[in-house]
Amino acid sequence: MKYSSKLIADAVAEFTKLPGIGEKTALRLVLHLLKQDTEKVKNFGEAVIRMRAEVKFCKTCHNVSDNDLCDICANPHRDHTTVCLVETIRDVIAIENTNIYRGAYHVLGGIISPIDGIGPEKLNISSLIQRAEAGEVKEVIMALSPTIEGDTTIFYISKKLRDLNVQITSIARGISFGGELEYTDEMTLARSIATRLPYENYLVKSSG
Amino acid sequence: MKYSSKLIADAVAEFTKLPGIGEKTALRLVLHLLKQDTEKVKNFGEAVIRMRAEVKFCKTCHNVSDNDLCDICANPHRDHTTVCLVETIRDVIAIENTNIYRGAYHVLGGIISPIDGIGPEKLNISSLIQRAEAGEVKEVIMALSPTIEGDTTIFYISKKLRDLNVQITSIARGISFGGELEYTDEMTLARSIATRLPYENYLVKSSG
Repeated sequence: MKYSSKLIADAVAEFTKLPGIGEKTALRLVLHLLKQDTEKVKNFGEAVIRMRAEVKFCKTCHNVSDNDLCDICANPHRDHTTVCLVETIRDVIAIENTNIYRGAYHVLGGIISPIDGIGPEKLNISSLIQRAEAGEVKEVIMALSPTIEGDTTIFYISKKLRDLNVQITSIARGISFGGELEYTDEMTLARSIATRLPYENYLVKSSG
Repeated sequence: MKYSSKLIADAVAEFTKLPGIGEKTALRLVLHLLKQDTEKVKNFGEAVIRMRAEVKFCKTCHNVSDNDLCDICANPHRDHTTVCLVETIRDVIAIENTNIYRGAYHVLGGIISPIDGIGPEKLNISSLIQRAEAGEVKEVIMALSPTIEGDTTIFYISKKLRDLNVQITSIARGISFGGELEYTDEMTLARSIATRLPYENYLVKSSG
């Protein structure tokens, strides 16, 4: 598209670099910002720049943080002997929003995927082992993607943790609450029968 | 949603102020930016701030511009005796992208709408009359929305231009190329018969 202003064209080009935003949407956003006060647009731009420039990653769990230690790791009311292992920051946000989990996290930063050139050394695995070696961690909850890469990563890390007296668990895999049997894939259905639990385990109760 | 970083939360909040962007999309955009180089994110934020702070509006046609006069008004190869009257900057971009129109524009900044409190004095009407009074304009092409407000605006401006020896035309209203008769509304269909033109007018030819 042709714009009569290079300033507009530049702003549109920057927006189109974002995922899922094409040129028409970018133009709509830019023309929206053009109608706002200069001060508000300045706040927008500065919040984004500041976020990228100043955000830190927690030295313990690699979650995003404003300080060296994230709010979760620094919170004395949380159970730091239980560590939930996730791939990304987004997973931490998803689990935190359930308001159920009171333990700590460890953000791997991805999963082992030789096709994409991601080996164990590119992930935050050694820092997890160090946490376990320090003797603080009693349980590691594996909350990775149920894919071959996820299983490979779990297998690799389990082996490393084997001699450290750490219990390894996995978040439950099965049929979603509200999910219908006939639309469930065979693998999930078969495994959900093999890993069945007493019915009272599925009754909603307050977390321990 | 809860974020472990106020910097992230602030950036997400700023993105959700944009039209059509909810909190989940905002988070996706922020986490995308978090993975980019600090320099690239700085470019993004600065392009947006600079756009809002430095963009000008053409003194002649009120289109967005980097200078006092926009590229179209400053272009000696365009026909400045023909002025296309549009509501917004977006309409200018849409018409420019057809690569057909070689005249000039006049951006009204809206249409007369008493319900929304928009009277003629809030629009760029007096500057259009001044352009016509200066004797430069031979034709004004009305390219406003085909609504009651649009018709009211056209009527109001036509009256003002009446004694200034300016021809007033309207972009063609009718059935879209590729549009099907049976799905066309009755008003458009009825008017398209009343305003029919010789067939050769619709054969594609290079613009004069």
